[in-house]
Formats: sequence, structure tokens, C-alpha cells
Amino acid sequence: MTKQALVFLSNGCEETEAVTTIDLLTRAGIKVTYASITEDKKVECSRGVTILAQKTFSEVDNLDFDVIILPGGLIGAENFRDSQQLIKKLKQAHQAGVVIAAICATPAMVFQHHNLFPNAYMTGYPTTKDTIKNWKSDRAYFDAQYKLITSQGPGTSIDFALKIIDVLLDKKAAAEVAAQLVLPQGIKSYQ
Amino acid sequence: MTKQALVFLSNGCEETEAVTTIDLLTRAGIKVTYASITEDKKVECSRGVTILAQKTFSEVDNLDFDVIILPGGLIGAENFRDSQQLIKKLKQAHQAGVVIAAICATPAMVFQHHNLFPNAYMTGYPTTKDTIKNWKSDRAYFDAQYKLITSQGPGTSIDFALKIIDVLLDKKAAAEVAAQLVLPQGIKSYQ
Ligand SMILES: [Mg+2]
Ligand SMILES: [Mg+2]
Repeated sequence: MTKQALVFLSNGCEETEAVTTIDLLTRAGIKVTYASITEDKKVECSRGVTILAQKTFSEVDNLDFDVIILPGGLIGAENFRDSQQLIKKLKQAHQAGVVIAAICATPAMVFQHHNLFPNAYMTGYPTTKDTIKNWKSDRAYFDAQYKLITSQGPGTSIDFALKIIDVLLDKKAAAEVAAQLVLPQGIKSYQ
Repeated sequence: MTKQALVFLSNGCEETEAVTTIDLLTRAGIKVTYASITEDKKVECSRGVTILAQKTFSEVDNLDFDVIILPGGLIGAENFRDSQQLIKKLKQAHQAGVVIAAICATPAMVFQHHNLFPNAYMTGYPTTKDTIKNWKSDRAYFDAQYKLITSQGPGTSIDFALKIIDVLLDKKAAAEVAAQLVLPQGIKSYQ
């Protein structure tokens, strides 16, 4: 069965992180839905890119996904943090066994702030290290016990997306996408 | 004076390449305008991301920029190739000394196809090597004589953007952006 991913977008979210993830998961054959955290589909990202979301929050709130993904960006992460309906959905999804994934400022500003994963290991933007309880310094890290995927910043967007593909599908699927990209040394190619 | 960049978007263009470039140039303080190659601002990229362009083609056709940038994507590159008004603008801009930049399928499918830079060295998506006359295998390459910047694929989007920043501004500006990103080893950090 086709895996289903939900990427949430907020005003101020980091566009490279959001778009790279949507792009690479789609290449892997995962059905990606990207939705606004509000009822406005027009999302203004952190460096001026305007993305037209496919769905509003209420249009995806009652749908099931295999993974829910949050990009970073300082203002974007604040907007995720301050959305009570989003936090409620993340808690419910985590309880239901859905994989949760976030990058950059978001692990610290959303997961740590709301203590959503009290014992999970996670990474994030390097300057957020001191605010994260169980820090991992990997470019992308999967805590299998808590089904949590985290990553560090715009330059780890590909690592993040390939890790999500590996977790949802397998290493072969991640390797097939990696082989299309012209990867630099230092990003795991799954080969 | 603030440098001005124009990024053209076409249906089917590669969203990671387009968005990473807009993002990083904006971080460098370059004023980025992203425009559709048609009169429709809604652009459907290659892996499903819908970007709302800031301008239509006719709204930017008579404006001056320091660099004009084309992302890749197979269908996107075909749409660039088949736009007579775009090809005319690229020729005029090149004659006027504007830097031209492209990545992935676009150097072969647009520049080589229309023979826009008969003697320039360029790179592109690895499978396009045989169709490019003077091939360079660098992740991002600047031919200073012809003011042409080319790059290879989605995984070289950061290399491409940092090279454009280096050419338009300087290595220090590229290094400052690079330092924000959490780069992998294999991408030049300009430090
Ligand atoms: Mg950030
Ligand atoms: Mg392509």
C-alpha cells in the first residue's frame, strides 16, 4: 500500500527544508500531502517563497498518515509551537503510532517546548543543542523506540528526506532516490 | 547597491533547485525576484510543489537584473527551451553582460539546444554530458569569460547558490551563508 506523508507548512517555515522533503519523498513513490496549519492555503516561507498548500488544516485533521513532517525556520517553528490544534494532532498521531519528523529549529521549539517526546533522542539546529534534553549530533537521526526522526538544518534537508524514506520504505528506496540527486560526500547515499 | 537576481519558474521545473537558490541568495542579501515564464503566476513544479510566482513574464521583461537563473527539471527545461520570449530575453541579457545561471537538465536542453554560449564551458545533469560541447564535471562551475554559471542537479543546489553568491558578491558572503546551513563535507564552504 502506498505510504502517506503529511508535511505541515506555516508562515515563516524554511522553504528549502519543506520543499526538498516533499520533492524527495515524492520521488520515492510516497504520496505526499502538504497542508497549511491554518485555513489559508497561501504560505509565506522564511526567505520569501510563497507556496500554495494543497490542503488547509481542517481538510487534513481527520485523515490518517504514516508520517507527519514539520520543517524548521525560526518563525515557522514558533507558529507550529503556538498552534494548539497542531500540537493536539501531533500528540494524537504519536499515540497512534504515526512517525513524527522535524528539522532545524522545530525539534527544540516544538517537541522540547511542549515535552512531546520526554525520553526520545533527537537532533536539531546546532544552536538549539543546549535546549534539547537527549541530544544526538547526527545529520539525521531516527529514534526507533519513539518513532521520531529529527535533522539539523537546511543543509541536512536531503539527509532528512532520505532518512524518512528509509524508515517508511527501506534502504533500497532511499538509495534509488539518492542516486538521482548528484549527492556530495558527507550525505549518506544508502548504497 | 543591492544586487538583483531573477529566477524564472516554469511548470515542471525542479522545486528543490528553484527554492534552494531563492532561499540562499535571499540569505546573502541579494534581492531575488521569482517570475513565471508565462502570464500565470501559479507554477506547478516537477514533484508536486505549487509555487506562487511574484511576477509574470511580462512584468519582469523590461527590468534589469545582475543575474538570471533557470532551475532544471526535465519538463521545466523543455518549457524554458520552447519559450521564444524567454530565449530572446536570455540572449539580450547575455549580450548586455548579465550573468546567466542554470542547473540540471537546463544547460543541455536550453543553452546547448539554442547554442546560446557556443564556446563556454559548462556542466549539467550527468546524463547530459554527451550533449554538451565543452563539459566541466564540477558540482558548480563559473565560466568567467562568458559570465555563465552551471551546476549538476538537485543535490548540487547549494553548491549552485553559493557559487552565484560568490560571483555576484564575494567569497565572504558565500561563506557567511554556508555557515548557516549545516553543510556536508563535500560542499565547498568558502571558508
Ligand atoms: Mg531555522
Ligand atoms: Mg532534472
